[in-house]
Amino acid sequence: MPQPHLLSPLGFRASGVYAGIKTKHAPDVGLLVCTGPSPTAAAVFTTNKVVAAPVKVGREHLAKSNGRLRAVVVNAGNANACTGRQGEKDARRMCALAAAVAGCEPAEVLPSSTGIIGHLMPMEKVERGIAEVAQYLGDSEEHALLFSDAILTTDLKRKSAAAEFKVGRERVTVAGVCKGSGMIGPRLALKAPHATMLAYLTTDAKVPKGVLGSALQEAAEASFNAVTVDDHASTNDTAALIASGASGVKLDSPKAQKAFEAALREVCQSLAYQIAADGEGATKVVVIHVAGAKSDADARVMARAIANSPLVKCAMHGNDPNWGRIVSAAGMAGVPFAPDTCTLTLQGTVVFRNSQPVPFDDAKVSESLKAPEVTAELNCRLGKGQATCWTCDLSKDYVTINADYHT
Amino acid sequence: MPQPHLLSPLGFRASGVYAGIKTKHAPDVGLLVCTGPSPTAAAVFTTNKVVAAPVKVGREHLAKSNGRLRAVVVNAGNANACTGRQGEKDARRMCALAAAVAGCEPAEVLPSSTGIIGHLMPMEKVERGIAEVAQYLGDSEEHALLFSDAILTTDLKRKSAAAEFKVGRERVTVAGVCKGSGMIGPRLALKAPHATMLAYLTTDAKVPKGVLGSALQEAAEASFNAVTVDDHASTNDTAALIASGASGVKLDSPKAQKAFEAALREVCQSLAYQIAADGEGATKVVVIHVAGAKSDADARVMARAIANSPLVKCAMHGNDPNWGRIVSAAGMAGVPFAPDTCTLTLQGTVVFRNSQPVPFDDAKVSESLKAPEVTAELNCRLGKGQATCWTCDLSKDYVTINADYHT
Repeated sequence: MPQPHLLSPLGFRASGVYAGIKTKHAPDVGLLVCTGPSPTAAAVFTTNKVVAAPVKVGREHLAKSNGRLRAVVVNAGNANACTGRQGEKDARRMCALAAAVAGCEPAEVLPSSTGIIGHLMPMEKVERGIAEVAQYLGDSEEHALLFSDAILTTDLKRKSAAAEFKVGRERVTVAGVCKGSGMIGPRLALKAPHATMLAYLTTDAKVPKGVLGSALQEAAEASFNAVTVDDHASTNDTAALIASGASGVKLDSPKAQKAFEAALREVCQSLAYQIAADGEGATKVVVIHVAGAKSDADARVMARAIANSPLVKCAMHGNDPNWGRIVSAAGMAGVPFAPDTCTLTLQGTVVFRNSQPVPFDDAKVSESLKAPEVTAELNCRLGKGQATCWTCDLSKDYVTINADYHT
Repeated sequence: MPQPHLLSPLGFRASGVYAGIKTKHAPDVGLLVCTGPSPTAAAVFTTNKVVAAPVKVGREHLAKSNGRLRAVVVNAGNANACTGRQGEKDARRMCALAAAVAGCEPAEVLPSSTGIIGHLMPMEKVERGIAEVAQYLGDSEEHALLFSDAILTTDLKRKSAAAEFKVGRERVTVAGVCKGSGMIGPRLALKAPHATMLAYLTTDAKVPKGVLGSALQEAAEASFNAVTVDDHASTNDTAALIASGASGVKLDSPKAQKAFEAALREVCQSLAYQIAADGEGATKVVVIHVAGAKSDADARVMARAIANSPLVKCAMHGNDPNWGRIVSAAGMAGVPFAPDTCTLTLQGTVVFRNSQPVPFDDAKVSESLKAPEVTAELNCRLGKGQATCWTCDLSKDYVTINADYHT
């Protein structure tokens, strides 16, 4: 059976073309158009105080159109951030051009950019790209792939996910693509702006705007906001969800809404996991699970402190069961934590319990760390709070990639 | 003229020996004894919730002795952290043995340990080491060097500093040694415990206990608490200051106290700078100076967010003037910041001003980054708050050092 993709939900067309913005010859201008009868949309943006022009314009458009998006226009290779008034003008121009293609108002277009910060957009190339991509719109898997390629920067892999559920006998699809490999530490919020992570989500359900916003924020909390590569929240992070309404299926029961929320969360979590797996220089995904914290918020803070420790990330890279780094990272998170009551389990082996090291076979645990996914579980036994955070190991390749990105 | 060292202040003796705790053949047990007539002391410890046994015992001793320390006993190679009751017993045993040498109460001894977390102390070696070091105490520069070597772990260089000032015609010396290369992100506080950074400071002034504590906390804020290698606050961080009183000089005027505070700050800042310069894998010191923030506290938060960004640290390693990473790091710090009003200067070249990139010669600025010390200055123009933070670049060697420290 073919896997569903970004354009499997009814009512969407997209494509991507190479316009010469990236140095690598690969799609760098993408356009996603919603052709459904009753589009509603929601987006969450970075909480960085430095906001790229497309994020500023995108927020403005969502407010102006009252949560109605007909198109997303995106480029990779240049973030259009720290580019002042000219940058804003350029983001608006991208929307105007995309609106002409989609047959909608510019305020119904969400612009996105990703790439280097502080360089003015090569608008001639961007404009040519939009004109070209307009001619190749379609709803096949190939079109979905072209769009998803057009948002990538240092990513080595495409990231895509989809889920389906039924309302009565009718099928609803939720799908999404995203990019993100470095500058990943999103803290997305509906009313605020964080790493360059871009995610675009589609569904063919008819979803009231209010439901869409809260479902997206909730899904983002449990997914994008729980993934970190370098904890560096970007100027451009964006996750946008458009519901085309093209399936005709209304989410008019609490049960149907719950099914939608679950499908959306599943898609977002799969995308977030794919970001960790494709983190710059990553050789494995590191899953940090904290349980028994005083609150979920405390658990999130601890999980993130562990996931962001370069010492923990290097140890995981070296298959080194140096668990003291994990316990001490939890201890420095600034939330209630007591070594006396906690248990730390590394790939299924208990290594620390009740303030005491638990003897284990070094070689065996080290061997168990040689896996594409490694899990550390910290049970605090202070309450019922829990959280999961996804990260990756820190390798020499990370340094290679980031020591010479610009020059 | 010979440089003053840890034992230049009158009233101290010290040494260091190799007891076989480190794998490398180099001193790993050190003892510092204060022989002055009226010793007063103060110490600041890590704020990590996971506290190594020697930190727990050290705090207890300072409280019990009412701020009177006659000796510091220290080992490298094992942190005695996450070692439960046995660890505490071992730290107490170290104090008892050192007290017997110094001829004082065990509560007048501060124990310190640094090294791997989660392993019980090899007490036989430690005991033999203390017995041996007791026989080689002295106050020469060589003795100071042996003690300062006994606290090192992944450090490649010894770290030592001293300053002198006069009260009337009488000379007072303040001196110190420290260790720290990885797990460096101290947040030291008088009443709380953070990276493994150990610092021992000596002076021959007669200093009232109250003055000593506040002077040390203030000096630590402007020095150890402003240096970060990996932002990982340790279970063992300790900075202790002992005033022997052996010079007979009392700090009985505000002027003399100010001179003492200035000398102490100078010594601590020099030591903190030396930690950044010897950070694991470091090839250069990166100085982040934030000015014009709403408050000093805000400036500290921004400077630290910039200094901790792996993307900024990698760019500095690659001599890459990718300043967008610096501006976006300031923007994600969570404190007031507006790109419209700020100016970013990289090694003297303005690269970003009033939301706009300022054109510069890439090759020239890149060349200017090839220096042992690189400075980024961010002027926010929002207020009078300022702060300086010292860090180092992130190199492949950092990964090599930390991917296989334990196994």
